[in-house]
Amino acid sequence: MTFRMVDLIQKKRNGAQFSKEEIDWIIENYVTGFVPDYQMSALAMAIYFRGMTTQETADLTMAMVNSGKQFDLRSIPGIKVDKHSTGGVGDKVTLILAPLVTSFGVPVAKMSGRGLGHTGGTLDKLESIPGFNIEKSETDFIEQVKKTNIAIIGQSEELVKADKLLYALRDVTATVDIIPLIASSVMSKKIASGSHAILLDVTVGDGAFMKSVDDARVLAQTMVDLGKSVGRETVAVITDMSQPLGFAIGNRNEITEAVETLHGKGTHAFRTFIAELAQIMLSLAGVEKSIEAILSHLDHGQAYEKFVEMVRAQNGDPDAFDHLCAPLKTAYRIDILADRAGFVTEEKAYGMGIVAMKLGAGRVTKNDHIDFEAGIQLAKKVGDKTQKGEVLATLYSNAVITDELVLEFKSTLVITDKATSPKEIIEIIRS
Amino acid sequence: MTFRMVDLIQKKRNGAQFSKEEIDWIIENYVTGFVPDYQMSALAMAIYFRGMTTQETADLTMAMVNSGKQFDLRSIPGIKVDKHSTGGVGDKVTLILAPLVTSFGVPVAKMSGRGLGHTGGTLDKLESIPGFNIEKSETDFIEQVKKTNIAIIGQSEELVKADKLLYALRDVTATVDIIPLIASSVMSKKIASGSHAILLDVTVGDGAFMKSVDDARVLAQTMVDLGKSVGRETVAVITDMSQPLGFAIGNRNEITEAVETLHGKGTHAFRTFIAELAQIMLSLAGVEKSIEAILSHLDHGQAYEKFVEMVRAQNGDPDAFDHLCAPLKTAYRIDILADRAGFVTEEKAYGMGIVAMKLGAGRVTKNDHIDFEAGIQLAKKVGDKTQKGEVLATLYSNAVITDELVLEFKSTLVITDKATSPKEIIEIIRS
Repeated sequence: MTFRMVDLIQKKRNGAQFSKEEIDWIIENYVTGFVPDYQMSALAMAIYFRGMTTQETADLTMAMVNSGKQFDLRSIPGIKVDKHSTGGVGDKVTLILAPLVTSFGVPVAKMSGRGLGHTGGTLDKLESIPGFNIEKSETDFIEQVKKTNIAIIGQSEELVKADKLLYALRDVTATVDIIPLIASSVMSKKIASGSHAILLDVTVGDGAFMKSVDDARVLAQTMVDLGKSVGRETVAVITDMSQPLGFAIGNRNEITEAVETLHGKGTHAFRTFIAELAQIMLSLAGVEKSIEAILSHLDHGQAYEKFVEMVRAQNGDPDAFDHLCAPLKTAYRIDILADRAGFVTEEKAYGMGIVAMKLGAGRVTKNDHIDFEAGIQLAKKVGDKTQKGEVLATLYSNAVITDELVLEFKSTLVITDKATSPKEIIEIIRS
Repeated sequence: MTFRMVDLIQKKRNGAQFSKEEIDWIIENYVTGFVPDYQMSALAMAIYFRGMTTQETADLTMAMVNSGKQFDLRSIPGIKVDKHSTGGVGDKVTLILAPLVTSFGVPVAKMSGRGLGHTGGTLDKLESIPGFNIEKSETDFIEQVKKTNIAIIGQSEELVKADKLLYALRDVTATVDIIPLIASSVMSKKIASGSHAILLDVTVGDGAFMKSVDDARVLAQTMVDLGKSVGRETVAVITDMSQPLGFAIGNRNEITEAVETLHGKGTHAFRTFIAELAQIMLSLAGVEKSIEAILSHLDHGQAYEKFVEMVRAQNGDPDAFDHLCAPLKTAYRIDILADRAGFVTEEKAYGMGIVAMKLGAGRVTKNDHIDFEAGIQLAKKVGDKTQKGEVLATLYSNAVITDELVLEFKSTLVITDKATSPKEIIEIIRS
């Protein structure tokens, strides 16, 4: 079948539904360059206003999967489980969860992404470990998982070629926050990566793409349905990203927080959150464990052991571990003090992510350099009590930290007289 | 002021209104290439869904005007009147109207366009006159108007640079039929062309961009308001384009029909239509004439004389005039006969325009060659009575006319028992 792209744009613009043939044609011809960016961006904007049906989203996802290579993990024994977060601030969950799940014998073969804008990326964080190699061939990747049950690498350039092109285009044409496009982008990568089962962490709130629980629920349900329709068992958890996750926002300090959690440290809330996610991932692989059993793998070193094994397997320098747990060391640091007594009521994740980026921990554009030591270390979290003058957070940068940036950071913090207790996991969605 | 295009796209997408500074920035940076097509097409699609206010449309129009040169016609004495049609099938109005108005001493300095798709273009029709030159410098153009009071040339490349880029982009991204974008495209060209007063012929129906009178009225009112807001007196007429205008659809045969009308021939309906438009144009120039006085300039040669004067001034071969009034001469011709007796009830303009294009009279893409002799000659118009077997129309082409094309043409014709009397001018809109 052949089509005219202008007719297809008009069709969607006018509210009609695409056939599988039409979607296949669009994606195939977009990847070859026959359909230019200026037609694709007009279509994306039409989809913003008109949406896509469940069938269209599934067809789009598979067209994207077919636009590149698919990893074949069948030679690895057992049920491989993948995990994906829709992005956030201070999100070091994968760094803890992957070795924790692996410590129960379940293989985790994961491809991760880099950070952009206010969001951090697992790859950048891993690269703050001296020597850590995130580039592996399919063969080497599979070999490592066979040997150690765990690997976290960067997404292969060969996978889901359409997504790379489309994502870059959406980023500059105000067409990022479109649920069927987010769902097909995430799920096409997960499907092409080859795991059998998938845990999706759909973040919601100020620091996430989804600002409302309703939107997050639609996105989560869309992806769970997508997974089901292609035979990949998928569970989604909707998690709070109104405040950053944990205490560290940056790169090396997030590794520190992850390592400390893998050593049994951390708040009850954060440990429980991680254990609950691990329980779902294990269950997806057919392994049922209690929260207590899972926490014991943090307390008794089994999870940490897998983490070290992965670092070694990916050329990371284990001798650097002492350094990894040292406080951040930068030319400039500023403590942010509470200007009144009360309870921390808000720590706006988006604003904090932007400040962390400006401190040097993130990227404005894809080619920006990251300073691994830069970042934010929170001393208090939402719900914590504070006295006037107590340290709420410390900003670290190798560039001068301007008064303007300090003010920007302060505007993300709200202290009131009201005690609150935030909930990490808001909802779990199964097919 | 500087902006990020992605923020501006998002602003419009979310339903907000642009400031003048934002619109100026967009157009300036689009013309330089700093804003790429893929952002502009996403914005155009957002405008499709969100619209633009009167103020935004006026700001856009002036930003477009300022994107190129403006012609200065002040050295030509008198009130210069321009005329524009939003396009149609068999639309030879300008060819008759311009010399008719000029015959009353009112200068007409007009820039016209080419045809594309189902619509014909005045320039193509003029070029079917051997030698006729549609390219003139500003100086030569003004000199000709000073000398003869009339000139019709192609639009200078230097005028409204943004429109040329934007129009080509809209054409391939399903963003053509957006009223504020059509209005600013038309009016920016008219304003940059320099005339004091403007008659807009807003066509409506099957063969026009505007399919409903309501849409046409909104477009007409938008353009009249735009003209007023920049000090150009503007009147719009909404005219019927459900059937082709007159009897000829093509290029050379439309010149023939124009010349015959200028010689006092033609139906009462068509002559009255032309005279009514001329009356408005003359009135815009401060010259009040009765319909009878205007028709007498068709009947007694004054209008034809101005036409010949223009053809000579633009290097057209007046010796070719005899040939110009001969029937079309092509390798193939087919008479289309009525398959029943009754009244012609429909002659669908769009379908006839497409058939004329396929016969060789029009362009599928901008670089296509036109066969000036190809086209359609109607023998009956909507409202006419016919017997079974009477000729309704004749198709002319230098390529074989396939049975399929004949069927396609027949599908544009409807004969019923019901007599109808179509109305040429549906409504007149003044500021």
